[in-house]
Amino acid sequence: MNNDCFAMPPGVKWLPVDEAIYRIQSNLEPIGKTEEITLGEASGRVLAESISACRDNPAMSNSAVDGFGFSFASLSSKNELELEEGYIAPGIIPDEPVPMGKARRILTGAPLPKGVDTVQLKEFSKIQGNLLQFDYKPKKGANTRLAGEDITVGDLLFAKGHRIRTHDIATLVAAGIDTIKVHPRLRVGVLSTGNELLQAGSSSDPAKVFDANRPMILALIDKFGFTPVDLGMVRDNRKEVRAKLDEGASSCDLILTSGGASSGREDYISDLLTREGDLNFWRIAIKPGRPLALARWQSTVIFGLPGNPIAAFVCSLIFGYPAMQILSGQEWKPPVGFMIPAAFQKSKKAGRREYLRARSNKAGQVEVFGSEGSGLTTSLAWSEGLVELGDDIRQIEKGALVKYYPYSSFWT
Amino acid sequence: MNNDCFAMPPGVKWLPVDEAIYRIQSNLEPIGKTEEITLGEASGRVLAESISACRDNPAMSNSAVDGFGFSFASLSSKNELELEEGYIAPGIIPDEPVPMGKARRILTGAPLPKGVDTVQLKEFSKIQGNLLQFDYKPKKGANTRLAGEDITVGDLLFAKGHRIRTHDIATLVAAGIDTIKVHPRLRVGVLSTGNELLQAGSSSDPAKVFDANRPMILALIDKFGFTPVDLGMVRDNRKEVRAKLDEGASSCDLILTSGGASSGREDYISDLLTREGDLNFWRIAIKPGRPLALARWQSTVIFGLPGNPIAAFVCSLIFGYPAMQILSGQEWKPPVGFMIPAAFQKSKKAGRREYLRARSNKAGQVEVFGSEGSGLTTSLAWSEGLVELGDDIRQIEKGALVKYYPYSSFWT
Repeated sequence: MNNDCFAMPPGVKWLPVDEAIYRIQSNLEPIGKTEEITLGEASGRVLAESISACRDNPAMSNSAVDGFGFSFASLSSKNELELEEGYIAPGIIPDEPVPMGKARRILTGAPLPKGVDTVQLKEFSKIQGNLLQFDYKPKKGANTRLAGEDITVGDLLFAKGHRIRTHDIATLVAAGIDTIKVHPRLRVGVLSTGNELLQAGSSSDPAKVFDANRPMILALIDKFGFTPVDLGMVRDNRKEVRAKLDEGASSCDLILTSGGASSGREDYISDLLTREGDLNFWRIAIKPGRPLALARWQSTVIFGLPGNPIAAFVCSLIFGYPAMQILSGQEWKPPVGFMIPAAFQKSKKAGRREYLRARSNKAGQVEVFGSEGSGLTTSLAWSEGLVELGDDIRQIEKGALVKYYPYSSFWT
Repeated sequence: MNNDCFAMPPGVKWLPVDEAIYRIQSNLEPIGKTEEITLGEASGRVLAESISACRDNPAMSNSAVDGFGFSFASLSSKNELELEEGYIAPGIIPDEPVPMGKARRILTGAPLPKGVDTVQLKEFSKIQGNLLQFDYKPKKGANTRLAGEDITVGDLLFAKGHRIRTHDIATLVAAGIDTIKVHPRLRVGVLSTGNELLQAGSSSDPAKVFDANRPMILALIDKFGFTPVDLGMVRDNRKEVRAKLDEGASSCDLILTSGGASSGREDYISDLLTREGDLNFWRIAIKPGRPLALARWQSTVIFGLPGNPIAAFVCSLIFGYPAMQILSGQEWKPPVGFMIPAAFQKSKKAGRREYLRARSNKAGQVEVFGSEGSGLTTSLAWSEGLVELGDDIRQIEKGALVKYYPYSSFWT
């Protein structure tokens, strides 16, 4: 990182959102460390090296059902076979081959012995003494799973930078993996600044403002799958501010502040970061969102989020999440949005991107909150996601397809 | 719960999915206990009582910007006012009213003093000596936020049974709430059964099967926001099975097993649950998904999931999740799906519901995995959600709208 890494490009007045995300990500690098963990802890962790299969899956060809195993070539035109004694169970390599013209009972998951390439279901078979007769002729290979049909030793399963999801775990287990090398879980600190702020519910003075951003953003970081670090609140006191920044820099990989540093108001945190922390205010062409402040303290990056809870929430998703992906070692994967018909109409200014608090309705359309008031916390609670209106859009008509991101797209 | 609560209705051969979910939920009740927690722990917790606002938000009318506050009625036709000394800061109730014809500096969030109903932005104002002139006449009330415009004392914020999401937290804080009464986090045990099962990576014997379901389902429960309890693996040993069931019933609110009890194979767990646990196999008209087994041990409900990882994953989402919602005290909210154009075509049997491993592509369509093979763990890793094909659908053409559930719809 060079000294002016967070400077706005010369001559640029308003940075488009995509350009801002690109510039943030280009200035960040994954935290270098790695650790070895077992699969029981794997969900949500970021691979520090690519993973290849150690074992075929299935490891042996086996039966997909409870039934009778035999060689297809030896099945008579009457669909009859001689039934042998015993059965083939899962978990044990069968040592006795099944001779031509004979069949043996086999359970789901049991390896196919030599001489068996086809299994007929119990339900479609009749037994009289040791004579086995099928209701119909199965296809060759029916009801079997071939060794390696899912995974072959050496297959690349997941690339470095992939984040393990719950539905990846079965593949890892099946491929014989027991431990994986991952990046440490990202530690993200949250600090609120401002003399007017108080801990939730701690005063009846109506002039005081309760600190909503800190518990909200801490919960969001947890939802992202990172480790939230509560750095508390700090007043405009030079010594206290410096101590908090030192504490954050030594315990976190990224610090999110809200309040002072974001507003451009004269305060000690802005003052300190301007003189010693390479503070820059980015004017991003986004609504909602006041200037985003970027700085660093020692080597830890600091984002100064807007004090307004709605803008702070949106900026955490739109700018914080991509930053955390890179820092945590992940490959950058934008959240998945869906094109849904608008239940609303709206005009907007071209040249900036807008994120509207939204939710889908029973008719499969997307509704937006009635008022765009930036102070309405209840609009956040009402919403289930964001409609993204692209930079160049000027008009949305009812029924037009708009891009909708459920909030859960950010915590897959 | 009566003794045959899990019996299939007489004469029913295949239970439709919706009917199965309804019957499961009707047989379950929220775990009764409650606890008091602070907002810092609120995310993902289920309200045990409705919450009403203790405080207006904003608590006082205040300025939305940095600017000049004045009485709109006193603004001259020249848009001029006399600028007073000093400024109004957030956090302090202003005691001196602003006289007619005068204006005072005011910062974002600062309460409006008596005599102020309108604020003009700094950027649109000129100062010469103590003469303040605006570039244009603002509207009455401009740039102010009125007391209570977001929340009024006594407003019902969230009903009993609501699950607190990250974006609800700002509303709780703003409404003066500091602690909430919630249900304890649901404890869900996961037990694997089967003699052939081994811990992931612990053997090179190709006949052995590594236990994929347990780590996968434990991770899924965590993703749902409940507390996963690892009950380990149990072999077909009567004493061991009984001990595990006792352990699970005393430490969990719900137990998910996979393996033995699901397959109808002769084993001790099925045997024990049949004799002492009201075991029933439900034939549900669903693919994938073998019969779902329902039982109880002491008073704890047990779901016997299919042994196959894909079917186990799907059944955990489709049947496990609605059960956990009810047990955890939540109001039942089906996951949110989206109607997306199909990138595939497919015929299916009427009379059963199918869930296809799917993901959305860059063209905004939904793709399904090439093979429906139930043993392919890699198809789960490939997918990002499920396409739901309704019970009566027989044919899907390319481009037709199909219902798509991103997996993240299950962990909003």
